[in-house]
Amino acid sequence: MKPGNSVEARTATLAEIAREAGVSAPTVSKVLNGRADVAPATRTRVEELLRGHGYRRRGGEGGRSPLIDLVFHELESAWAMEVIRGVENVAREEGLSVVLSESAGRLTPGRTWADQVAARRPHGVILVLSGLDESGRALLTSRSVPFVVMDPAGDPGDDVPSIGATNWQGGLAATRHLIELGHTRIGAITGPSQMMCSRARVDGYRAALETAGLPVDSGLIRPGTFHHESGYRAGLDLLRMTDRPTAVFAGNDLQALGLYEAARELGLRVPEDLSVVGFDDLPVARWVGPPLTTVRQPLMEMAEAAAKLVLELGRQERPAAGTRMELATSLVVRSSTGAPPA
Amino acid sequence: MKPGNSVEARTATLAEIAREAGVSAPTVSKVLNGRADVAPATRTRVEELLRGHGYRRRGGEGGRSPLIDLVFHELESAWAMEVIRGVENVAREEGLSVVLSESAGRLTPGRTWADQVAARRPHGVILVLSGLDESGRALLTSRSVPFVVMDPAGDPGDDVPSIGATNWQGGLAATRHLIELGHTRIGAITGPSQMMCSRARVDGYRAALETAGLPVDSGLIRPGTFHHESGYRAGLDLLRMTDRPTAVFAGNDLQALGLYEAARELGLRVPEDLSVVGFDDLPVARWVGPPLTTVRQPLMEMAEAAAKLVLELGRQERPAAGTRMELATSLVVRSSTGAPPA
Repeated sequence: MKPGNSVEARTATLAEIAREAGVSAPTVSKVLNGRADVAPATRTRVEELLRGHGYRRRGGEGGRSPLIDLVFHELESAWAMEVIRGVENVAREEGLSVVLSESAGRLTPGRTWADQVAARRPHGVILVLSGLDESGRALLTSRSVPFVVMDPAGDPGDDVPSIGATNWQGGLAATRHLIELGHTRIGAITGPSQMMCSRARVDGYRAALETAGLPVDSGLIRPGTFHHESGYRAGLDLLRMTDRPTAVFAGNDLQALGLYEAARELGLRVPEDLSVVGFDDLPVARWVGPPLTTVRQPLMEMAEAAAKLVLELGRQERPAAGTRMELATSLVVRSSTGAPPA
Repeated sequence: MKPGNSVEARTATLAEIAREAGVSAPTVSKVLNGRADVAPATRTRVEELLRGHGYRRRGGEGGRSPLIDLVFHELESAWAMEVIRGVENVAREEGLSVVLSESAGRLTPGRTWADQVAARRPHGVILVLSGLDESGRALLTSRSVPFVVMDPAGDPGDDVPSIGATNWQGGLAATRHLIELGHTRIGAITGPSQMMCSRARVDGYRAALETAGLPVDSGLIRPGTFHHESGYRAGLDLLRMTDRPTAVFAGNDLQALGLYEAARELGLRVPEDLSVVGFDDLPVARWVGPPLTTVRQPLMEMAEAAAKLVLELGRQERPAAGTRMELATSLVVRSSTGAPPA
């Protein structure tokens, strides 16, 4: 069986599923509609059969709610706001509303998120930095609810439609910019290693150093999360080294701001003593002092592309396996980078 | 007729409304459910009768979708994110999902936002800095959809449940802090004058000056919007005055960051040459250099209170006329304020 928006395989009718499960057809219907009045054991049995048979609900757009579901792994920072605005833009044009959820730590007893989605039957689901396990995919597929993964945290698989950005190119461009300014000891603070976007950025950083003939010093690469605090901690570690780096490529803008704080605390000026490059180009990058040189990720456009793709999938009812789009990143040079101290 | 969650007045049944409108009862039902297959003229006539009779749909929680509607006037900045997180927290506990909309410039042809809400029947609606006109209120009331206004932009009226913050106290505390540091020429950048929260902040500023025996110089009070750009523009105006202020109370944190930029551009240091106080205490206030002294507005807690209130209204089906809660603001002193230059 293929997960995701794969080839339609209506191998069993609702009545056949019901017979095999030993329940009535209306009971199967209730499960499909995410109704609460079905015994958990029955629900599980029916879901397994739906999944095993690769059942797909008929009807396409009919019976769908005028909604798009947008699911974040973690709902914080201006990053999420850019994504929300992008999805809102497309939803508004289509007369749809956006349902927002956070998957981190979400353990609603009884009715799960997937049940709720099955019950409301949105036009599509956009998962942001948030995977979906096989049973979740099967559930959406059986209800004919298309989904798209934005900026995949892990490897979503070739058959899952997804929208990303050219993270590797971004890491390369950021580091080349620092090399061109004359830096040779360039540090990096990474995002979580299980996130593909994070790995790609660091790989781009390494590629820039190697192609410039500079050594890659693993002591200058510090692991972190995508939060401010992490940039601050890793920043203190890097800047307290006896042979400290003269420039640092941060995993994202929030980390870069944490690094600013570490530099301030140690009495180092940006960019005179330390050059800093971020990633994302959140609105705040323009507002901090000095304004941050960063790799722009077109978050709003990516979210718009994800929303358009998921609606397209919903309308066409066509297999879109293998659809993977990466929008271009671009370096935005502001005032946080300069020549290394003499 | 009273708008909002006022006393229940079931003066007409659905059948009576239908008779008076000259349509069938199922047609009235379709209008109530926000269905699209009703002629616009019929819909208008039925809505007017529903409103005129103060009709309220029976059934309370029955038939409601497990949703809360959250409507922003304008969906931007980390401000909105704090509110979203607060509503999400409460929704998650209750097994509900959050539907997000933006009201600014939203003109969906045919089906309006109110129609969509009527169709999905959420457990409640939270309006953020976004009023609801009388017909919108009547529509929600007729569907028994409770609503709460958060941080009212205008004067919501005593019979509209609303959650705000003690903006006046915040303006007072911010300005007193500057006076205690020794400042006597204190400027202010305001938010939009049609927003009550903005007026209250400036009134608190004036009260602090007057009770300290300091003159209120209208030339030092600059009108603005709540955006970064506005703080930058008004900041340049204030700081280019021959007798410029030594401290400025900004209408919110984004304005304060715009003011930082204006100061940088003119070669003025914060806080040595200029003290700055913001309002909101967004996460970014801690991250900028120097970290911003600001008036903390408990946005997430306010949003949680609004969500709890609207669900309470929905459960009790009780009039909550006059419910107006203001959560306390508090001054957070960081590094952007100090004694005036000698």
